[in-house]
Amino acid sequence: MKLIIFLAMFSVSHLYSSELLKQSQAIFQAIPTSYEKLNKIIDNPHNRLSKEKVELGKMLFFEPRLSKSGFISCASCHNLSLGGVDGLSTAVGHRWTKNPHHLNSPTVYNAVLHKMQFWDGRSKDLEDQAKGPIEAGPEMAAPKELVVSKLKSIPEYVKLFKKAFPKDANPNFDNTAKAIAAFERTLVTPSRFDDYLHGNQEALRKKEKAGLKKFINKGCASCHSGIGVGGSMKQMFPLVKPYKYANIGDFNKSKPGMVKVPGLRNIALTGPYFHNGAVWSLEEAVEIMGETQLGQTLTEIEVSDIVAFLKSLSGETPKINVPTLPRYTKSTPLPEL
Amino acid sequence: MKLIIFLAMFSVSHLYSSELLKQSQAIFQAIPTSYEKLNKIIDNPHNRLSKEKVELGKMLFFEPRLSKSGFISCASCHNLSLGGVDGLSTAVGHRWTKNPHHLNSPTVYNAVLHKMQFWDGRSKDLEDQAKGPIEAGPEMAAPKELVVSKLKSIPEYVKLFKKAFPKDANPNFDNTAKAIAAFERTLVTPSRFDDYLHGNQEALRKKEKAGLKKFINKGCASCHSGIGVGGSMKQMFPLVKPYKYANIGDFNKSKPGMVKVPGLRNIALTGPYFHNGAVWSLEEAVEIMGETQLGQTLTEIEVSDIVAFLKSLSGETPKINVPTLPRYTKSTPLPEL
Repeated sequence: MKLIIFLAMFSVSHLYSSELLKQSQAIFQAIPTSYEKLNKIIDNPHNRLSKEKVELGKMLFFEPRLSKSGFISCASCHNLSLGGVDGLSTAVGHRWTKNPHHLNSPTVYNAVLHKMQFWDGRSKDLEDQAKGPIEAGPEMAAPKELVVSKLKSIPEYVKLFKKAFPKDANPNFDNTAKAIAAFERTLVTPSRFDDYLHGNQEALRKKEKAGLKKFINKGCASCHSGIGVGGSMKQMFPLVKPYKYANIGDFNKSKPGMVKVPGLRNIALTGPYFHNGAVWSLEEAVEIMGETQLGQTLTEIEVSDIVAFLKSLSGETPKINVPTLPRYTKSTPLPEL
Repeated sequence: MKLIIFLAMFSVSHLYSSELLKQSQAIFQAIPTSYEKLNKIIDNPHNRLSKEKVELGKMLFFEPRLSKSGFISCASCHNLSLGGVDGLSTAVGHRWTKNPHHLNSPTVYNAVLHKMQFWDGRSKDLEDQAKGPIEAGPEMAAPKELVVSKLKSIPEYVKLFKKAFPKDANPNFDNTAKAIAAFERTLVTPSRFDDYLHGNQEALRKKEKAGLKKFINKGCASCHSGIGVGGSMKQMFPLVKPYKYANIGDFNKSKPGMVKVPGLRNIALTGPYFHNGAVWSLEEAVEIMGETQLGQTLTEIEVSDIVAFLKSLSGETPKINVPTLPRYTKSTPLPEL
């Protein structure tokens, strides 16, 4: 009799588990394990990936001379050692200028899985996005003509551009952004949650599954869904209740409060949180989301379970060798501090 | 008869070559190829190298949270992608402060081979040097107490310090500097010139050997000697003739003009030149050195040969993976931009 009860409980729990997995597979999407399938997701028909392009893009990502000062590279704010962010509330750029809209640097890891880029979602892809910070005055402050003339002045870059973009005679700004985007497209970080979505129910611990269930049932997953666990839409913030930091980072004058729903992969590594980086604790961020977006006061245990689930989204970062960048020449425009 | 002349010429030229090699071996010293011999040179009895210490030191070298702002790491100014320098005339630091003495960031590559650190040579080793920029107001601006409290607040760092420094209970500032120095001690870059010093006469091209000969005969090697091709002494600058940029970077008030003789390994990659970064062209730098230090006007061909030799000092940089840094906790002091 005891055995029967035990078996019945076991199968109910197993059934319940399978249910959660099925539900999750319907809402989210795993990062594929096969290179071919992954490539279909990260490739861009208008910017086909090649080894040469990715390698050049990596160099350019680390290249401080793309900035006017020669001191700031993409990697300065999208620090690959720190989850692809700078760990600051407000991004800082050329001449120590803080982002005028108090915006927080979003991560480059898994950004390829998003349907839009920037906190206001104004860019449709990484190729378009990569141009923004290079030219923006408070970021790298380098007009595209300056960028191109720096690259053209360095024979190694001219060669590498020729290899990456055989149809184009010389480095140009579009290709600069394309190469950087190609590198960024490789920055995906599969996590234990992907193992789970692939069907391995042991990949998540009990508390993490409880958190996943709450993440779905409370409504978090109605925005944070898909392969990016977010990153596919914009949403009002705050939506249903006021938010104490709403006055910070309300940057979109045409549609006040419309903010890109960030992807939550590696969220435990990319604090501080929200588009304005106002909150340092992941627990507090979850609590606030419950209040402002779902109109619910989450209990301590609910928050703690959801945070446990979110931590399972911390993925394995690709191994990246520090690139060696070529030397300037006599015709390279000098840095302007 | 023709054959005899040919053979005679060959052996004279061979003899002449061997002479230059012998002379060079007496003046310079190759980076050893064997790990054991290299280790004897780069190890410090007061800071024994270990895998754990070097790995921790690499993390700390890339750790922007060692700075007050959380934005500047050792790697910001000693960019390992750019020959270990920032490629700027004047170093820039906390809140975009330019170095008040107009000093140029020296390279960390091969700094272990020098007998003194900083442009005024005030540090005897990397362990002592590493503390300076972290605390200096215009650089990372972080008082040691702040650094230690940040590191202590992050359990992963506490663990890694324990592994690297088993005798010490907690991260402290001395060990922070020691770990960074341990990593820096591994940053040596053997070059073709080392192959040559090891006896491979084919490792240098004819023009490079001609440059080496002039480098010795003109007197450059009387200061730029030893395993670092410099880095072992201070010298007046300018010494025998005035130097047009002497008013910039005259930082040493007690002994005006006394400047550390920089090591010339990778010199072709670490412009701009001199302690004040006033000169961008290596040719011009060699010319000025001839004038101000040796009282000689070098011919164009002399400069070009010497520069060819200097380029042979560009070495192979070690492969360095971008480290992953641990997350802050609730007790980690926040960055102060």
